[in-house]
Amino acid sequence: MKKALILLGCPESPSQTPMAVYVTYKLKNMGYDVTIASTPSAMKLLEVSDPEQFYITQKTDIESCLENLDQGAYDLLVGFVHRDAAVSYFVTFYYILNTSSIAIVFERDAEELERFINDIENNTNATIISARAYHNPTPLRVKFDKTIKTMEESHVLP
Amino acid sequence: MKKALILLGCPESPSQTPMAVYVTYKLKNMGYDVTIASTPSAMKLLEVSDPEQFYITQKTDIESCLENLDQGAYDLLVGFVHRDAAVSYFVTFYYILNTSSIAIVFERDAEELERFINDIENNTNATIISARAYHNPTPLRVKFDKTIKTMEESHVLP
Repeated sequence: MKKALILLGCPESPSQTPMAVYVTYKLKNMGYDVTIASTPSAMKLLEVSDPEQFYITQKTDIESCLENLDQGAYDLLVGFVHRDAAVSYFVTFYYILNTSSIAIVFERDAEELERFINDIENNTNATIISARAYHNPTPLRVKFDKTIKTMEESHVLP
Repeated sequence: MKKALILLGCPESPSQTPMAVYVTYKLKNMGYDVTIASTPSAMKLLEVSDPEQFYITQKTDIESCLENLDQGAYDLLVGFVHRDAAVSYFVTFYYILNTSSIAIVFERDAEELERFINDIENNTNATIISARAYHNPTPLRVKFDKTIKTMEESHVLP
């Protein structure tokens, strides 16, 4: 089975937990076995958000995930990026996994958003989905849907 | 069937959407038919957060809900309060429904939190659950579980 890893950053943004559920749901429907790697605080939000584990069945701590990570462990990497720490995590995971990768970059502040996008562009060949999003998840959801559809149709996805 | 109404405020806090799912889940397990009334932006977060509508089956716009509200329409009111507007909505719904009510008050800032608690205390007899919560939902979740258990055991709940 194809395996996808979703990276969650700091949980400050109200869009992140809902979008993490949504991305998991979409990827599962596409046949991926999905694992979410996150900080402990982001994981608490996921647990409260899905008490029956209907959507999110596999969760792991981002640090221990990184320690045991090998190339080929996952076929697809999707990272939520809205902090410098999340950029670093994404780039690190990107180079270890060396596979198809999508960065979902979101920030309320336009300059910060631009900076995160540049950081990802200058350091990786990942597909970038970006929006000035904070509490409205729709721009990210719509762009994610379009991007994943295009990648699927052009056989870029594993 | 017993009917509960959950009121959601502005969606700025990353805890609100996950906790709304959790409270819905708990109340359904207690036999309530649960409806969530929210602003359009809070509703978008709910939709992304539960794409299969596994947890949240009944959603309504808070304004149109208010227009058509009568005493006795719901047996239990649960309101998320972390803004002045949410205080006003809660108090308004409280007086129209005139039934068992719980205010979940949360704010990062201690003074603001105190002010919201005082507003609810001075204007209603609702049970108050409060925490200085922002991206950690655990204090709210634990207090909600304890409060609802106590209310159930002492037959305060409808």
